Amino acid sequence: MPETYWMNGGDSNYSYVLNSTMQRDGSVNVKGMIEKVILDRLDVTHLLSNSNTFYVADLGCSVGPNCFISMQNVIEAVKRKYQMSKTEAYKVPEFQVFFNDTSCNDFNTLFTSLPSQKQYFAAGVPGSFHGRLFPESSLHFIHSAHALHWLSEIPKEVVDSNSAAWNKGRIHYAGANEQVGKAYSAQFAKDFEVFMNARAKELVVGGMMTLLVFGIADGISLSAFPAGFLFNFLGWSLMDMAKEGLVSEDMVDSFNLPIYTPCPKEIGELVGRNGSFSIERIEITPFGWTELSAHSCVLHLRAAFEGLSSKHFGSEVVDEWFARTDEKGREFSSQFESALKEATQIFIALIRK
Amino acid sequence: MPETYWMNGGDSNYSYVLNSTMQRDGSVNVKGMIEKVILDRLDVTHLLSNSNTFYVADLGCSVGPNCFISMQNVIEAVKRKYQMSKTEAYKVPEFQVFFNDTSCNDFNTLFTSLPSQKQYFAAGVPGSFHGRLFPESSLHFIHSAHALHWLSEIPKEVVDSNSAAWNKGRIHYAGANEQVGKAYSAQFAKDFEVFMNARAKELVVGGMMTLLVFGIADGISLSAFPAGFLFNFLGWSLMDMAKEGLVSEDMVDSFNLPIYTPCPKEIGELVGRNGSFSIERIEITPFGWTELSAHSCVLHLRAAFEGLSSKHFGSEVVDEWFARTDEKGREFSSQFESALKEATQIFIALIRK
Repeated sequence: MPETYWMNGGDSNYSYVLNSTMQRDGSVNVKGMIEKVILDRLDVTHLLSNSNTFYVADLGCSVGPNCFISMQNVIEAVKRKYQMSKTEAYKVPEFQVFFNDTSCNDFNTLFTSLPSQKQYFAAGVPGSFHGRLFPESSLHFIHSAHALHWLSEIPKEVVDSNSAAWNKGRIHYAGANEQVGKAYSAQFAKDFEVFMNARAKELVVGGMMTLLVFGIADGISLSAFPAGFLFNFLGWSLMDMAKEGLVSEDMVDSFNLPIYTPCPKEIGELVGRNGSFSIERIEITPFGWTELSAHSCVLHLRAAFEGLSSKHFGSEVVDEWFARTDEKGREFSSQFESALKEATQIFIALIRK
Repeated sequence: MPETYWMNGGDSNYSYVLNSTMQRDGSVNVKGMIEKVILDRLDVTHLLSNSNTFYVADLGCSVGPNCFISMQNVIEAVKRKYQMSKTEAYKVPEFQVFFNDTSCNDFNTLFTSLPSQKQYFAAGVPGSFHGRLFPESSLHFIHSAHALHWLSEIPKEVVDSNSAAWNKGRIHYAGANEQVGKAYSAQFAKDFEVFMNARAKELVVGGMMTLLVFGIADGISLSAFPAGFLFNFLGWSLMDMAKEGLVSEDMVDSFNLPIYTPCPKEIGELVGRNGSFSIERIEITPFGWTELSAHSCVLHLRAAFEGLSSKHFGSEVVDEWFARTDEKGREFSSQFESALKEATQIFIALIRK
């Protein structure tokens, strides 16, 4: 069974609801691209020839509100395409949207904050996208934003003291030795293949999948990327705490962030190797971090990693750890803020062959 | 918008999870009837001629675990019928189950307690069943157990001091004047029609709906029914508290339980008037209360009504109110326990015409 991760629920100060504006901006940045690829490449009339309902899934939706914006965007583009395609009188299709995240996700917050004017029937689907979630050929469109960087598990080698990829004194591959990066990359390739096989079953032939992935341009080192900085701030803070005896070194050595940020070339090769999808578009686009301070980025990090961190270290460690991470952010703010300007994500549009 | 009600979430002492064994027993009592009506009357081969997925919904599922037992039962019967119907080699269908309840329901508890060995893809659907929840013709089977007694709202007349149906000093129609009962009955008829119209849209032609409803035999007074006793215990306790100034009389007069328990004749007439379904089976069956004490019944009542009660009176009133209701249960335990032996529910199986 894959590990389950979850964003902070509810709507308190450290919630994902209040600390996910960078993901929102990332989604808003590709709104036009998603519209265009739907209008240009999706054969809506064919997809709706056997059904008056258009089935959409958002994988790794978290607790809202960003997923509502993405789904509204997809639905409006599909409707427009359908109106453009049909010359005779036709019935406007109905939409069913499945919001998916792990079973630990705060679906209660998601469900009570669904937009009152939504133009679709909403359902929540609990479970890891590193596995099947839906019946065969039951979806017409799959979207996933800022979620595929989660690995199904920490690569075993990086927490194995007998391995060349042992990542002692670090919690991520940013700035680590090459073997560590390779172990992460291999785990991502394995997870991505499982993900693609599951989606190939669930999506009808001709259906579209749009993925928005935290990612970096080919040949760039993660350490120069804002996420790399943040992971280092987290790691350094944790090592400081280990030196002071606030956490044990064993606990630190057995912990690594299950996060991987691929480059477009890597994703393109994995899609090709899988073979079930044609690539309609793949490109690096700017991310939404430019307006954020280091402090706000650390809050975003906490909304995403607090669940995971508490599970490993116990919740009593978390406040101190993130306070120190925030301090590191302040200390390195000038380098961090210039890295922010270069922040990127990868947009990929695929069609099921 | 209909009011939303919810069962107590989580798994603490007053949770629905721990205080819903009577509903479980009620469902177990009709297991054989559901199997039989599926085997005798459901044309599974026809329903699966255009789809390899069989879509099922459980309306008013609450937080589990009873709904998991019901869904497993339905799925096993459908599989058996399908195996019996097909003479040549065939592909076993996949099942998608939609668990529905209002958006205030504790879906987090539901999702984290899904059976690990389930034979279906699970989804949660938030929203009131007094309205549309699913796309047109998208379901093959609908089940609803111990949920249709919830009215979409308190009948307006019973809280209107200018109406002949004003229910001063009571919180339910059990033992009240005839006008109050008529107002409740009219509200139920209105809600049931809305429910049936929505389900007629959602269920494919030939699809089946099984309903299990808190209900009493034709011609029996609710006051002689265990639920009638319990509602009176609640009402008397509240009036005692009003006399002692612990709640205001206005608050009591503006509160009535939005609960109605129909008889088979009434349900049969409403289904006939609606016209979209044929009645395959309708009958009164024993309910599962016989093994329960008055104290346990009051805990069941609290699991169901605490949300509603807290919303109206404030949570500080609830402990005292249910302690006094428990006391009434003890006081009248001999009458209550003989009523328990007569406890009934209505089982209805319908097919979409």
